[in-house]
Amino acid sequence: MPRVFTGSPVRDLLALTSRPEVISFAGGLPAPGLFDVDGLRSAYDRALSRRTLQYAPTEGDAALRGLVADRLTRRGLPTAAGDLLVTSGSQQALGLVATALLEPGAVVAVEEPTYLAALQCFRLADARVVPVAGDDRGVDPAALAEVIERDRPALLYLVPTFANPTGRTLDAARRAEVAALADRHGLWVVEDDPYGELRYRGEPVPPLASMSDRVLYTGSFSKVGAPGMRLGWLRAPESIMRTLVVVKQAADLHTSAVDQAAAAEYLAANDLDEHIRGLCAAYRERRDAMVDALPSTVPPGARWSDPDGGMFVWVSLPGGVDTGELVHEALRRDVAFVPGAAFYATGPDRSTLRLSFTTNAVEGIREGMRRLATVLR
Amino acid sequence: MPRVFTGSPVRDLLALTSRPEVISFAGGLPAPGLFDVDGLRSAYDRALSRRTLQYAPTEGDAALRGLVADRLTRRGLPTAAGDLLVTSGSQQALGLVATALLEPGAVVAVEEPTYLAALQCFRLADARVVPVAGDDRGVDPAALAEVIERDRPALLYLVPTFANPTGRTLDAARRAEVAALADRHGLWVVEDDPYGELRYRGEPVPPLASMSDRVLYTGSFSKVGAPGMRLGWLRAPESIMRTLVVVKQAADLHTSAVDQAAAAEYLAANDLDEHIRGLCAAYRERRDAMVDALPSTVPPGARWSDPDGGMFVWVSLPGGVDTGELVHEALRRDVAFVPGAAFYATGPDRSTLRLSFTTNAVEGIREGMRRLATVLR
Repeated sequence: MPRVFTGSPVRDLLALTSRPEVISFAGGLPAPGLFDVDGLRSAYDRALSRRTLQYAPTEGDAALRGLVADRLTRRGLPTAAGDLLVTSGSQQALGLVATALLEPGAVVAVEEPTYLAALQCFRLADARVVPVAGDDRGVDPAALAEVIERDRPALLYLVPTFANPTGRTLDAARRAEVAALADRHGLWVVEDDPYGELRYRGEPVPPLASMSDRVLYTGSFSKVGAPGMRLGWLRAPESIMRTLVVVKQAADLHTSAVDQAAAAEYLAANDLDEHIRGLCAAYRERRDAMVDALPSTVPPGARWSDPDGGMFVWVSLPGGVDTGELVHEALRRDVAFVPGAAFYATGPDRSTLRLSFTTNAVEGIREGMRRLATVLR
Repeated sequence: MPRVFTGSPVRDLLALTSRPEVISFAGGLPAPGLFDVDGLRSAYDRALSRRTLQYAPTEGDAALRGLVADRLTRRGLPTAAGDLLVTSGSQQALGLVATALLEPGAVVAVEEPTYLAALQCFRLADARVVPVAGDDRGVDPAALAEVIERDRPALLYLVPTFANPTGRTLDAARRAEVAALADRHGLWVVEDDPYGELRYRGEPVPPLASMSDRVLYTGSFSKVGAPGMRLGWLRAPESIMRTLVVVKQAADLHTSAVDQAAAAEYLAANDLDEHIRGLCAAYRERRDAMVDALPSTVPPGARWSDPDGGMFVWVSLPGGVDTGELVHEALRRDVAFVPGAAFYATGPDRSTLRLSFTTNAVEGIREGMRRLATVLR
């Protein structure tokens, strides 16, 4: 018999929201209109060669690793090409880390709520997932210390900057405390950072990985470039890189050499920072449009996040409603969101929901929020 | 502490054979000179779009699944698009199957010797690998029946056509017996078929998957198209497809939508069968050059396979030599092969070696075999 795993409710929902008349705030999709199609097409054209069509090293394309290392170094995380493993999206990095570090039954500590495909990944590795309490400043170091004491986690998984689904950022002081706990207890930490460059206000916070050698950092081309290419990277200490490469080799030998070379050509020939400034300008307006619409969309007593960056607004409704029921009514009115329950490792708060503000332009956001108001108020 | 896994000796060896003066028979690499670089470049150009740069369905590109299904159907394996999951190379298909079907400690039965990255993959899944005896006609059904009785395997892994590393093909009569055993005992079988279309003599043998619903069939674009694109597919019964999709989703969300769309564009605009006939003509000559050179390359008493297709000749040397030692001397003489021990799940025969005849042109093969003769004779 096959083993039984539960699918992602977000993916199932995405299938329902593919009707063109639906304004979807459900998927964490970048705005397709902002993809640099011409720049990428020309990068692929240059990248295609006998070399990039052949089998390639598991670790990844040398040029791409060098370019990504330079970018990370400039962002305050000193990195050499050899510190990086190229992965098929940062989603794959999570699976490789789980296989490399987790014996069956191992404990993984997570923020709650957190990225649901990470939860799936740890469950597939037969890990036990334990939540750590937090607040608007991110995970609470005192609560983490208790979980370490009680549950002896092998791994802590965090999206410290503009978290999915809450939009929260772990502040610098708490990062230092988390790093110190990781060092003291020999805890491995995954810093999942797909959104860090999408900042719409305030100053960057230093990467957790710059504060401790126990932190594995994973980044992605999906939110600043294009997700269809499935390119991510994992920065890991030398002590476990060898194991990660063996695991990656067994997983898929290597990530598409064509996609990797195209990304390297793109980064060498284009100013990604300039492209990201354009994304931030557009997404800032979209966040503002959504946050501005919220008071007239949700009932009195609702609370929501007003994120400094990333893709998501997180909403808590009053009065014990179940957003898993409300979403069906929303779909009937041609608007979609993700009910919050799936983002919880343990006891879900069913009165929560996640709204993505990046996919739709400002006018679409305003219309979608008007539709949503008829469901929520 | 990270878990400890052993790396692939083939990959380690490939690093040593990258000196340009080495004639390598080690890697299972297609001939880069035969890649259709122009056809693929123009396919990528057509494939690049806002749609293919966005997140995509986990199951795979609809057009590609349809085109692959049609090809499989024409080859005697009736297949609908919905029966297929696109994977990042067929290597990934093995990992997905292992995660979907194997509880820790489950038994996997394999031919011996067999594809070593499959062995790695099953070991990472904490499976116990049990060999099944065979001969030049492939795995022995009577031996398989005994293993089923004794070890209760959850899965049987086979490369039934032009096996890696032996070049052997499981004949039609034995296929029927294996299929009947699978049906009778509820055994899952993986039919790994990257080489089946590379036939240089004789008639095609029906796919094992056409004989039983217990067979998961995996194919690849790597040997007939280009491996750098990392495209494979898994044909699986409906009863386990849902689980496989969930596992794939947790692994990497989906395979590169750009690579998938490019392959679909390529298959729609080009005659892949004609391209494969060209590959077969070239590889047939190369196989013949290698097999013709063998009598003057190996010592008297050596035995070797003369495969009807695929990429590999398998050699057994007399006199209790250890090819793991001989390979160092070979590298000093600028020629490389893979020592056979790594292909064994259990007691390795250290007097064996694998030679790939596809990567080098005929003149290179002759020169490489002359160098090899100075080491082996």
